[in-house]
Formats: sequence, C-alpha cells, structure tokens
Amino acid sequence: MAILFMSTEAGDAEDYLPLLKGHLPDQDIRVWPGAVGDPADTEIAVIAVPEPGVLAGLPNLKAVLSLWAGVDSLLRDPTFPRHIPLARMVDPLLGVDMTHFAIHWVLHFHRGLHRYAGFQRKAEWQPVDYPEAAERRVGIMGLGVLGRDAALKLAALGFAVAGWDALPKSLDGVETFAGSDRLADFLGRTEILVVLLPLTPETQGIINAKTLAALPPGAFLISLARGGHIIDADLLATLDSGRLSMALLDAFRHEPLPADHPFWHHPGIIVTPHVASKTTPRTAAAEIAIDVRRLLAGDMPRHLVDVTRGY
Amino acid sequence: MAILFMSTEAGDAEDYLPLLKGHLPDQDIRVWPGAVGDPADTEIAVIAVPEPGVLAGLPNLKAVLSLWAGVDSLLRDPTFPRHIPLARMVDPLLGVDMTHFAIHWVLHFHRGLHRYAGFQRKAEWQPVDYPEAAERRVGIMGLGVLGRDAALKLAALGFAVAGWDALPKSLDGVETFAGSDRLADFLGRTEILVVLLPLTPETQGIINAKTLAALPPGAFLISLARGGHIIDADLLATLDSGRLSMALLDAFRHEPLPADHPFWHHPGIIVTPHVASKTTPRTAAAEIAIDVRRLLAGDMPRHLVDVTRGY
Repeated sequence: MAILFMSTEAGDAEDYLPLLKGHLPDQDIRVWPGAVGDPADTEIAVIAVPEPGVLAGLPNLKAVLSLWAGVDSLLRDPTFPRHIPLARMVDPLLGVDMTHFAIHWVLHFHRGLHRYAGFQRKAEWQPVDYPEAAERRVGIMGLGVLGRDAALKLAALGFAVAGWDALPKSLDGVETFAGSDRLADFLGRTEILVVLLPLTPETQGIINAKTLAALPPGAFLISLARGGHIIDADLLATLDSGRLSMALLDAFRHEPLPADHPFWHHPGIIVTPHVASKTTPRTAAAEIAIDVRRLLAGDMPRHLVDVTRGY
Repeated sequence: MAILFMSTEAGDAEDYLPLLKGHLPDQDIRVWPGAVGDPADTEIAVIAVPEPGVLAGLPNLKAVLSLWAGVDSLLRDPTFPRHIPLARMVDPLLGVDMTHFAIHWVLHFHRGLHRYAGFQRKAEWQPVDYPEAAERRVGIMGLGVLGRDAALKLAALGFAVAGWDALPKSLDGVETFAGSDRLADFLGRTEILVVLLPLTPETQGIINAKTLAALPPGAFLISLARGGHIIDADLLATLDSGRLSMALLDAFRHEPLPADHPFWHHPGIIVTPHVASKTTPRTAAAEIAIDVRRLLAGDMPRHLVDVTRGY
C-alpha cells in the first residue's frame, strides 16, 4: 500500500512531502511523476493540481484526497474514477483567509475606497458618502463552509447580510434564499454581491447578463471562487452600461489571466491573481493525515464530494 | 434656560436642529451665530466644530456637550471655560465605522493588496505572499472606546493583537502595554500599527523619528485619529529610508490637506480625507438628548472629559 502525491504545480511536493512524512512516518509516500513505482501499489492519492488521466491508471485506488477546496479541475477529467470516494480540503486557515478577503473588499466598496486613489493623484480632498452598515445589503452566493463563515462574520460587522444557495440553508442573523426560483429576489436586494459558489454544471456562467441585470443599479461584484462562474463578455457589457459600479475578480477562466485579456485594463475591474485564500501546507498536511489514518482504520475520509453535484 | 447649538461647518445645523427638536420638543434650542439671543440664557452648549471665544461669553453655561469624539479643538481655545463639565460624543455608529476602517487597512496591508494596482497596470500576474494571520502582529495605540473595539474585532479575525495606552488597560485576547516605559517594547513587536489615540500634549508628535525607528523593518502605519500625532517630516524620512513600507493617513495637521503637501504624491502614502468615521446625526442627536435630560434632572452627562488630561 502506497500513498501517491500529485501536483503539476512546481514546489508543492517540496512543501508537502516533508510534512506528510512527519505526520505519517510509517507510510510509503511516493511523488508523481518521478517516483510512482508500480501503479498497483497506490491505494490513496493526495492531489493538489491534477494531471488528467493519471488516476484512471491506478487499479487499486481506494480514495482521492484533494488538497484544494474546489474539486472542479479533478472532475473535469473525463477519466476521473467517479466510483472512488473523493474528499475535498477543508483547511481551517483557508476559511480565515477567504473571509478576510471577502471582508476587505466589502468594506472597500461599502466605503467607496476604490475612489480615493484617483482623488489622491489630483490632490483632491473629496470624502465619499456611504450608508450605515446596517442598511448596506451584502449578499453571499454559496453557503458552503466558506460562504457561511463570510456571511456570519460580515453580519457580525453590522451589515445586512443575505445568502443564496442551491439548497435550503439557515444561518443566524442572515436572511437565506434557496434555489433558482429565489435567485432574482436575492439579487434584487443585494448591493454588494460576493460569489463563493462551487463550480458545477449548474453554476457555470451563473454571473451573466440576466443575473447582473437583476442586481440594483450601482451594485458591486466580488468574485472569489472560480472564473467559470462569470460570462466575461456579459460582465464587461454590464460595467460599460454603468449599471454595475465595480467588480473585484480573483479567479479567471484561464490563469494566469492572459496579458491581452480586457479585464486587466478595464477601469471598473480590480484584478487580483487568485490570492483570496491559499491552502497552508502546515495545516493542510495535518488534515490529510487525519483522513489517511481514517482510511487505514477502515473509515471514510471527511468532507466527501458528491460527484454528481460536483461539490 | 436655552440650549445653544454651535458649528462652523456648513450643514451641521440643518442636520441636527430638527433631530434635537424632535427629541427635546419642550426645550428652547438656539443656533449660533444668528439666533443666540441673550447670552445669559444659554445653560447647555452642544458643539460640533467650535468657534474660539464664544463659550467664554456665556455667563450661565453649566455644561458643554461635544458632537465630536475628539475634543482637542475645543481645548485648544485658551478661553475655553475649563471649570465647566465637558462631555464628548460616544456615538455607537462612530465606533462601527472606525473599526471597519481599521480592519480594512489592516487586511489591506496584511495581504499586500496595496501592490496589486501597480501589477494590474502592467498586466502582471504576481501573487504577494503573506504570513498566517495568527503570526501577523497588529498593534493598536490608544485603548479608549474606539481602540478597544478595533483591537477586539481584529483579534476575533485571528490577528496577534497588542494594545498600548498611557494608562494600564486589560482586554481579552489582546496583550497590553502601558505607559511611556513600555512604548518601545510595544512598537518593537508591531508590524501593523494603528493609531487611535486622543490628541493631548503628551501624544502630540508621538509618531516621530524615534518611535518610527522602534517599529520592525517593513512595518505599516495606519493613522486614524489626528494629524497632530505625526511629525510629518519624520514620517517622510522614514518612508524614504525604506524602513517603513507604507502609511495610510486619514487625519492631518491642516485639513483639507493642502494641495502642495508632499503626502499627496508620496508613493508610500495613501491619503484619505478624514473619512475613517463620521458622527451620524440620527444616533448622535439621540445621545445628546440623553445627556440634556440628565442635566435637566440634575445629573452629570456621561463620557466626561478630564480637561487636564485632554480626553
């Protein structure tokens, strides 16, 4: 029985291998692609950034543990072995970072802070007015682990927070909307929209001309999860029409965002390079070790993905 | 018995008078300068932005209620009647806004977000690394109502928060330092410094070459209270030396900040035009009415200022 570590991202193996070996000193941990050995040995795969096709070639694979919270890149591989338990990362620090990032950009737009750099260049003393936080309607799309944490912390900061999810969820101090029937109602009351959805066939392109038009005039978009949620041309057109004030985009269909993509130079778009949160090797390796020990004891890993739903 | 409302700021009387009259329908509320009437009538003065000398001319004044949290501009008037009880504003919403502003800029510098606008102009995909929040040492100077709230909320967001105050204070989850003897120790451990001190003779110029040099290399300054805390030339020299990474300044010695002031165009300084928080007429007028009723009943107003200390 071997554990196979796979990432196409340079540096991941150097970060994780010593940590995983520290937590699991008795295990045979191998690194793709150089040290796979006999593919029949691997029973557990630990995956950061996957290479399509590799998992299908492991005949005795019993579980896949993702180092990423989003497993859409794994499930995009048509050869991915969908009958095998797949668990995603719930790194406590990843939630901390994501909530921090969401709070930062909500406060940024709430207080009009995106406008002061322009005033400063012209040495203009020009306060921007803003409503009371209790009257500022923030909406969180996606009430999974990350969305729930962001919603609760934003509500604790005094904002009027609502959340939308495909499935009914309830959250203290947060008005919740469920299902596609309620999406327009949720968007209609949302001045600052934070997207923290998983990327699934249902949420592909969910930020489009129609949903953007459902937001009140002058709204703000904060897209923190996946670029595939957004129809890029629809977002640009809505910004150009003046209906949407600004968009903060942290995730893109193609990353790094190509140098000639219009998002880079649009005055209504702030681009950050997929930094809303990061998996921290120290804490993530500890989470992986917990699930490896569960598997060795005959239990299932935690945080299993429903592969038919995609999250 | 009359209540005199005074502000040299245009619009204040229009905002406050209807609210104060709503709360105190039976009182004779007059507005400086046009409707003072007999100066001997005024027993309570409600002051936003003062005009020096006016209060000294009210022979029967029994209390001064400040609409501002900081009373340094009142106490700078040498004719201010120092024997009369002076109360400052503790507006619950002012604290909400100030804490929001502090959180925003701590998160901004913690995550290196001040660097992405430059990268975006060049279409550069360049993630900025950052430490875990639990290892990021934030320091709050001034543990009054505003500093305490900011310190507790930043600690709740996972930061390693310490606080310094002239007097010993204790706060759950926040390391505290008291007095000038401990200032260097506090600064030496502080990577992101938030200044929320009152402006008093002791805190005038407290951000100077010596205190800035006590911060660790690469630190950040967030100045939210009064411009008089900072020795402008020392701040510019410390930024130019590269020891200090960036400064966010919201308050200045002369406001509006003069167009030729070097702060406007220094690459290490972000200028915001005194917008960290604002007194909200709706809530502040209610607070004033509470203290007026206390005075009418023979009680002292709340939040009395120690005029010898200056806060």
